[in-house]
Amino acid sequence: MTGPRYTPLVQTLPASVPFVGPEAQERARGRPFRARLGANESVFGPSPKAIEAMQKAARDTWMYGDPENHDLRHALAAHERVGPENIVVGEGIDGLLGYLVRLLTGPGDAVVTSAGAYPTFNYHVAGFGGVLHKVTYRDDHEDPLALLEKARDVGAKLVYFANPDNPMGSWHPRATVERMVADVPDGCVLVLDEAYAQFLAPEDMPVIDADDPRVIRMRTFSKAYGMAGARVGYGIGAPGLIAAFNKVRNHFGMSRISQAGALAALDDPQYLAQVVDTVRTSIAGIGRIAAEHGLAALPSAANFVAIDCGRDGDFARAVLAGLIERDVFVRMPFVAPQDRCIRVSAGTKADLDVFAQALPDALEAARTRL
Amino acid sequence: MTGPRYTPLVQTLPASVPFVGPEAQERARGRPFRARLGANESVFGPSPKAIEAMQKAARDTWMYGDPENHDLRHALAAHERVGPENIVVGEGIDGLLGYLVRLLTGPGDAVVTSAGAYPTFNYHVAGFGGVLHKVTYRDDHEDPLALLEKARDVGAKLVYFANPDNPMGSWHPRATVERMVADVPDGCVLVLDEAYAQFLAPEDMPVIDADDPRVIRMRTFSKAYGMAGARVGYGIGAPGLIAAFNKVRNHFGMSRISQAGALAALDDPQYLAQVVDTVRTSIAGIGRIAAEHGLAALPSAANFVAIDCGRDGDFARAVLAGLIERDVFVRMPFVAPQDRCIRVSAGTKADLDVFAQALPDALEAARTRL
Repeated sequence: MTGPRYTPLVQTLPASVPFVGPEAQERARGRPFRARLGANESVFGPSPKAIEAMQKAARDTWMYGDPENHDLRHALAAHERVGPENIVVGEGIDGLLGYLVRLLTGPGDAVVTSAGAYPTFNYHVAGFGGVLHKVTYRDDHEDPLALLEKARDVGAKLVYFANPDNPMGSWHPRATVERMVADVPDGCVLVLDEAYAQFLAPEDMPVIDADDPRVIRMRTFSKAYGMAGARVGYGIGAPGLIAAFNKVRNHFGMSRISQAGALAALDDPQYLAQVVDTVRTSIAGIGRIAAEHGLAALPSAANFVAIDCGRDGDFARAVLAGLIERDVFVRMPFVAPQDRCIRVSAGTKADLDVFAQALPDALEAARTRL
Repeated sequence: MTGPRYTPLVQTLPASVPFVGPEAQERARGRPFRARLGANESVFGPSPKAIEAMQKAARDTWMYGDPENHDLRHALAAHERVGPENIVVGEGIDGLLGYLVRLLTGPGDAVVTSAGAYPTFNYHVAGFGGVLHKVTYRDDHEDPLALLEKARDVGAKLVYFANPDNPMGSWHPRATVERMVADVPDGCVLVLDEAYAQFLAPEDMPVIDADDPRVIRMRTFSKAYGMAGARVGYGIGAPGLIAAFNKVRNHFGMSRISQAGALAALDDPQYLAQVVDTVRTSIAGIGRIAAEHGLAALPSAANFVAIDCGRDGDFARAVLAGLIERDVFVRMPFVAPQDRCIRVSAGTKADLDVFAQALPDALEAARTRL
């Protein structure tokens, strides 16, 4: 009996799962984390209005969500001062990146990103047979000039750039990003991942024509809005590119409860502003804890901060392992020299106390081992 | 300035949206439906335990859902008496069908289904470049022998079969389905869509070895469980095929609230049994309303019923239009001769009253026009 005949492309894809969640780590450890600071979630949670809207919508979940995401799309358009034809809503930025890559990238097509940037983008590119070209970070920042130069050299159909960047928390001045958009090579699309945009200072927010066909901005309710589990992302782009998503997306893929929650969250800018403030305070607190133990926190415009452990990747990995042993869920960059850092998400006072308690012991254990 | 360079395949895909939801119809009409009986949703809603679990989880939605769907997968495995390695959870059957088609079907690959069967499956096949071969229904049933014969003739990698069938509500005896599985051609996978399985009489439920690599069963929380808006489906299949989903799926695609709701719904079999009973009563009631106006309801093992309007497709389309004008959301089969029917989902007593009031007027209007 012959088994399923997978496509040639699928046969080349690794069967290993690159995405290990904190729950899997908890199951392996046999006990829960005391502080969940590894996935850049917002421990401060969604707006109470969003929680209420989701609780109310739970009774209505017998109905499919509106496949057009009409109300949310129109509300987002008003919020972003663009037209509804400039907005596509999808199952988180992860889902939207998958659709975008599928629209543009077939076997052998060139795509550019930074070594050590968002791995889920790379997963999608590989999944559709694209060929990834990676440029290196420069001084812990993604390098716009190098990205564009590489895109030009290889004739890329897609170039990925996150601002603010994950995992480093670094960002570029508004003018640099606007210049980058202006310089995208012909026939290439810049995917500008702005998952952490709400944490930028207003003067750092790039101004981009939503009808510019060279760029699509990606936003999410997973970070500042505190709704990672709801899976709501959106793209802002030119109407032609936005409409193309309708050719491939899972039209009934959005949770009705999530649609309702996002709509309510958008209607509570006061709460959002308060979270952004609280996150800044928390990031500063993490920086102070790091400094108390001789470590430097990098500047961050996100809801997490990279802490330079002062030595190499092996040392930082040992510190990370020590934190996880001590029930603190954190993650770290994959690629040198950024992997000299660990990445810690903003947390509550209680979370930071757990971190502050675990860090010196984790450092001591790492120093003893290496 | 060149725009985005879409893949050659994407350039061939239609930009029109094949999925018009009831909300879009309501917006076009400028008023809401009085009875929502068109999408085979369960107006009886989710289990109160599921609602409670989702309301509770709303506060936790700042966390991503477990990308492994561990707890739900294990609960489903126990429920289905299979191993967790036999279960994949995804964003509704729609999402899982997309992944399955992507795993197996590349440009030019042959896929078999029935003319008039589930259009979302066809959407995915077209979306990955597969070539659809369609066989006709026989006496308002999908035709297992014809499907397998066609699959053999064209060397299909995938053959779609729904039992019970949507849109007709018809079903096959257990032995027929089991025989079909045994006769799947080498190198072909049978996707057995069992979205409505909970409405089958227990003696009609096929027994299939979960480790059989020739078949994958698709189940959902959207129908009997009353959670269409939550987007939770699952597949039951051989470990190799199930593991292959990890190569392409959106690992963080599941809503955390939906995971919690599905887990709680699974834990309330009494409520499920009660819904199945209520649905049968409602289906019988729809049949009586049809009979009162000289129309015959077809036998159904689902939560909807096809009503034979007694003439051709144009007439049934006129009846459908008349019902929609009278604020009753219903749908109908796309293909002759099944398009002599309209398809009405089970509803509450109040829904059925609205339908009973609208039907004679819609019939009268259709008779006057045609």
